[in-house]
Amino acid sequence: MLFFPRPLQDPIRGRPKEIPHNEKLLSLKYESLDYDNIENQLFLEEERRMSPMGFRCLEISRWVICGLIGILTGLIACFIDIMVEKLAGYKYQVIKENIEKFTEVGGLSISLILWAVLNCAFVLVGGIMVAFFEPIAAGSGIPQIKCYLNGVKIPRVVRLKTLVVKVIGVICSVAGGLAVGKEGPMIHSGGVVAAGVSQGRSTSLKRDFKMFEYFRRDTEKRDFVSAGAAAGVSAAFGAPVGGVLFSLEEGASFWNQMLTWRIFFASMISTFTLNFFLSIYHGKPGDLSNPGLINFGRFESGLLGALFNSLNYWLTIFRIRYVHRPCLQVMEALLVAAVTAAVSFTMIYFSNDCQPLGPERNEEYSLQLFCADGEYNSMATAFFNTPERSVRSLFHYQPGSYNPMTLGLFTLTYFFLACWTYGLAVSAGVFIPSLLIGAAWGRLCGILLASFTPTSPIWADPGKYALIGAAAQLGGIVRMTLSLTVIMVEATGNVTYGLPIMLVLMIAKIVGDYFQEGLYDIHIKLQSVPFLHWEAPATSHWLTAREVMSSPVTCFNRIEKVGTIVDVLSNTSTNHNGFPVVVQPAKLCGLILRSQLIVLLKHKVFVELARSRLSQRKLQLKDFRDAYPRFPPIQSIHVSQDERECMMDLTEFMNPTPYTVPQVTDAVTAVVQVFSQKRQLIDMIRLQGCTQALDNISTSAEDYF
Amino acid sequence: MLFFPRPLQDPIRGRPKEIPHNEKLLSLKYESLDYDNIENQLFLEEERRMSPMGFRCLEISRWVICGLIGILTGLIACFIDIMVEKLAGYKYQVIKENIEKFTEVGGLSISLILWAVLNCAFVLVGGIMVAFFEPIAAGSGIPQIKCYLNGVKIPRVVRLKTLVVKVIGVICSVAGGLAVGKEGPMIHSGGVVAAGVSQGRSTSLKRDFKMFEYFRRDTEKRDFVSAGAAAGVSAAFGAPVGGVLFSLEEGASFWNQMLTWRIFFASMISTFTLNFFLSIYHGKPGDLSNPGLINFGRFESGLLGALFNSLNYWLTIFRIRYVHRPCLQVMEALLVAAVTAAVSFTMIYFSNDCQPLGPERNEEYSLQLFCADGEYNSMATAFFNTPERSVRSLFHYQPGSYNPMTLGLFTLTYFFLACWTYGLAVSAGVFIPSLLIGAAWGRLCGILLASFTPTSPIWADPGKYALIGAAAQLGGIVRMTLSLTVIMVEATGNVTYGLPIMLVLMIAKIVGDYFQEGLYDIHIKLQSVPFLHWEAPATSHWLTAREVMSSPVTCFNRIEKVGTIVDVLSNTSTNHNGFPVVVQPAKLCGLILRSQLIVLLKHKVFVELARSRLSQRKLQLKDFRDAYPRFPPIQSIHVSQDERECMMDLTEFMNPTPYTVPQVTDAVTAVVQVFSQKRQLIDMIRLQGCTQALDNISTSAEDYF
Repeated sequence: MLFFPRPLQDPIRGRPKEIPHNEKLLSLKYESLDYDNIENQLFLEEERRMSPMGFRCLEISRWVICGLIGILTGLIACFIDIMVEKLAGYKYQVIKENIEKFTEVGGLSISLILWAVLNCAFVLVGGIMVAFFEPIAAGSGIPQIKCYLNGVKIPRVVRLKTLVVKVIGVICSVAGGLAVGKEGPMIHSGGVVAAGVSQGRSTSLKRDFKMFEYFRRDTEKRDFVSAGAAAGVSAAFGAPVGGVLFSLEEGASFWNQMLTWRIFFASMISTFTLNFFLSIYHGKPGDLSNPGLINFGRFESGLLGALFNSLNYWLTIFRIRYVHRPCLQVMEALLVAAVTAAVSFTMIYFSNDCQPLGPERNEEYSLQLFCADGEYNSMATAFFNTPERSVRSLFHYQPGSYNPMTLGLFTLTYFFLACWTYGLAVSAGVFIPSLLIGAAWGRLCGILLASFTPTSPIWADPGKYALIGAAAQLGGIVRMTLSLTVIMVEATGNVTYGLPIMLVLMIAKIVGDYFQEGLYDIHIKLQSVPFLHWEAPATSHWLTAREVMSSPVTCFNRIEKVGTIVDVLSNTSTNHNGFPVVVQPAKLCGLILRSQLIVLLKHKVFVELARSRLSQRKLQLKDFRDAYPRFPPIQSIHVSQDERECMMDLTEFMNPTPYTVPQVTDAVTAVVQVFSQKRQLIDMIRLQGCTQALDNISTSAEDYF
Repeated sequence: MLFFPRPLQDPIRGRPKEIPHNEKLLSLKYESLDYDNIENQLFLEEERRMSPMGFRCLEISRWVICGLIGILTGLIACFIDIMVEKLAGYKYQVIKENIEKFTEVGGLSISLILWAVLNCAFVLVGGIMVAFFEPIAAGSGIPQIKCYLNGVKIPRVVRLKTLVVKVIGVICSVAGGLAVGKEGPMIHSGGVVAAGVSQGRSTSLKRDFKMFEYFRRDTEKRDFVSAGAAAGVSAAFGAPVGGVLFSLEEGASFWNQMLTWRIFFASMISTFTLNFFLSIYHGKPGDLSNPGLINFGRFESGLLGALFNSLNYWLTIFRIRYVHRPCLQVMEALLVAAVTAAVSFTMIYFSNDCQPLGPERNEEYSLQLFCADGEYNSMATAFFNTPERSVRSLFHYQPGSYNPMTLGLFTLTYFFLACWTYGLAVSAGVFIPSLLIGAAWGRLCGILLASFTPTSPIWADPGKYALIGAAAQLGGIVRMTLSLTVIMVEATGNVTYGLPIMLVLMIAKIVGDYFQEGLYDIHIKLQSVPFLHWEAPATSHWLTAREVMSSPVTCFNRIEKVGTIVDVLSNTSTNHNGFPVVVQPAKLCGLILRSQLIVLLKHKVFVELARSRLSQRKLQLKDFRDAYPRFPPIQSIHVSQDERECMMDLTEFMNPTPYTVPQVTDAVTAVVQVFSQKRQLIDMIRLQGCTQALDNISTSAEDYF
């Protein structure tokens, strides 16, 4: 169901030229996914013709598609992984040799320039791809997937072109040394793969495999996209359960977040209580999963995340206002790449943290620089490396591998770099940079605590602190709890860290929410997406359905004149996407969508023509499926003056059982309140009132439409 | 919303004397939970009076309650754990000494009698508690909790008395050596704790703490019960995430199972593909989580589970027909206890599987019996032990600790014992016995495979096979996938077993479903509970809402005569629980519940009285909350002949915005079809048609009402 007026600009070249920035206003360029099957006569006839065997086949093909989604997503992740390793390995090798060459003879500035140039070259490719070919591929893609799962159709978000740009873009930006990760883009890629595979055709490539035609509608497609996103998480972190939870947690539409968290909380407390008292009973009261870690994690978590988000918020507003031309965006990306290289170089150059080279660290790109033979520069393991590897070394290296000064400086610089980087016109995830920042300050805290309490063994391993710090930082930025816990537990492969990670994530969320929204929510808001949260504000009781609906309802008769239909569809001021069908006097008998009317007009399904040409093929569901999802705009449909006088019979095509809410005229109650529990009602209201022109609402309801 | 006619028998002494067994008929004694808030004027006024601060306090108290639920559930689990350990330890100690005494002098039959008597004594206490005091406390309680989360109110399932009986009962049955576990009852206990704590009072103890009054309604209570069930899982298995997933998977109402499994499948495949190709890329293609294990698990899994379920199905039917008197039930429990002791004893007695006693096994109750000094009887580690410990030894003991003969015999006997035990009138879980059976045959298969391929190291550890076998057996019996995977992964503390466990569980489910339903579903069906599954049968398209609704709708006028109301409520043939309120001519303006009318009648809220007694206190939401959840039956309300002539104004109390579906008269479509996607619609239909007398439907719809 398209519940927003279509964009007024040319829909073919639909890239927003300049979003009028006002975070209080929702953009009109987004449409909603159709949560419902359109249960019209055609649909029901098809369903009835289908044998039980047919339904079983459908069920099996759903599983087959999910299998394909998993395989393809895994392969793409594999490709990204290998390419990043290869390219980054090559780059670091070249620079390392260059640095080693110039360390003794002097002239390290040439190395710096080489480094910066190599970075810029990679970022240039990625930036151009994104800025000029597919701007929607910028960033991690998680906000977009989140919106999609939430039921908002973001234009071009699940197209093949987006996937290609995303994959190449993320390889370039990670290989280009930006402070980014490749995990978010993998999740987005999974979603695109799912949307493509499930349709059995590619509109971009103009190939139709004549498969899976049944799934060519929003309801089915969205289910597959949620599977794709889960597969993406699973491929990115090796966390299948985490992936499922991610899909559920982010696809807020069939998931009550607050309740789930409370359930989670109760579970957590229950295990803790049991273990606590049992450990006392067995006389080993300390035998829990390191309560010290938990206490520590409480410290600061969330605050840094909120700071990150606030900075990024202002930066994004700046970008929306001033950096909206593609070439400017590419320039900014190049600038960031160069600065990243320069800062990294400077940090490494002035660092005097030399550590003895262990035999097991040969594989890393360890830089000797000014250290003695057999030693390496510790700052370089953090900067001169892909972020994934840096995180791993922060988690797993022996105590004493980093000195506190190194970690402090690293945290500080990487924090600002990552913050600057997120939102650039490159494909880039924020997971790994967040983990890296968190791991660095976590390890730093661990070292400091260890120096205060040198005797206690539980403070001994700074790697654990790095893990908890990473969780806190990431939780503070993205504000997921349940799925993130499971992802981190699955990624570390150790269930015993579950409890501290959970607690830290919860605290990070609570503390962070007090100051600023989560990063993804900020970006969704700044893109003016009409995102529906689970919880309606408590005061929304005072709002009735009547108040949020547009008042003279635009509707059609069951048998309507073609001219009227064309006029209504073309009218940009009543730019609705769903229309009630009525029989006189004003009795609702169904609902018809703009997209359906377009198809009907295109096939000229007029009563008069049907009479004259008896041989004319009856319109079938297939015709609607073939047109899905890119229905042409009304302007491209040509209707002659004669045809305008014809009549169209909507009976067969309308949905005769749309959701309705009691007529507001005798409803004293505030229907909006029901939002928080009854997701479906939102659709009802969307459908019944038939699209509200939004620009003139200024109450709190605007958060909901 | 009560959507079933009330039971015809006396509601105070409501234990079913004899359930007329017919698995095609649904029982009338169950009611549905009210998923909706009754948004009448009283409710809306209260909501409007509430400040934003008030809402925040509510939110905080929800978290506090969840914390309390966690703590109390943990404590109860702790109590059960310790008591079982103590009692079982004492029992085994006594028997062991006795056996050791008589092994040499002969007369082991005295030991057998001692063992049987001790077992019977424990089981007698537990059986009497359950059979005479609270029959609903029998079994694991998971089917009941599942029904509750699904929206069916099972009488007395969340009462304090049930909790007490359950806790004592489960301690007795585990200590009594039955083939049962304590995990299911812990989950049920969690649910009861939640239902109690969240209401801030105990109706049984007649104590009202004047707290949490806002939560005294079905919507809120059900949410807390799902938290309680999760806390129970978490306490039972140390699996907080698994607990959350359990609540979601079982509380089918806000969770689309099929979709989630497909998502899970896609995630799984994705990780697998990635790892597979990366491992090839890195030149180590075997580096996966033991594909051999997976192949093995495929074998047989599900079949044994289906066999178990089928046997238990017939046994349960037999029990419903013939063993329904409490004393018979207690006798059967005693018989099972005695037989269990006798069989165990015989098995141990005739076993000649002696194993050398390692220093680390001192803590177990190892029996020497006829083995040489320094050796112990291997069969006894399986039988002469609490089931939890037996499972643990099957997972963790060294290869060679059991010989195949022992395992084979153990599997066979324990299989039948467990099957016989489940459904007895004792509190008893089926998780651990299933795990035990599975672990035994898993280990057996592991040993056999190892003997075929003695060189391959991956076949070496039979403990892993035990784990996989346990998962397969449990999955085949209970048919959970996602939550069970997470529970088992969290319980073993090792994420790497995740993939094989998942695969095995999925296969067990697919294979098992082909033959027989899951054990819980069987018991739900046999108790004739109107349980709503997520998926409607594919052929339900042909059924319209009109066809499943009762046809002359019993309804009230907005201002109705008291006599009419009393008559309608007392009429046992139109035994509805929700009534549409209409204004003439037949225009729906709201919906009122039986429970509301009862409260109104009790408080004599009549128009005439309000006029005469101006000082009369206006009825408030509090009065409804105080009556919740045990509303008196209509027979206990006394209305005089004069009062019968009074009028009642329902305007303020009815819900003016009930859900409705399009009038069937002009709906050509099959509304029932929407069930599979739109859970809420079920409520709509329940409400609108206002309760269908069920005994006269014989189409497939009966599965759904």
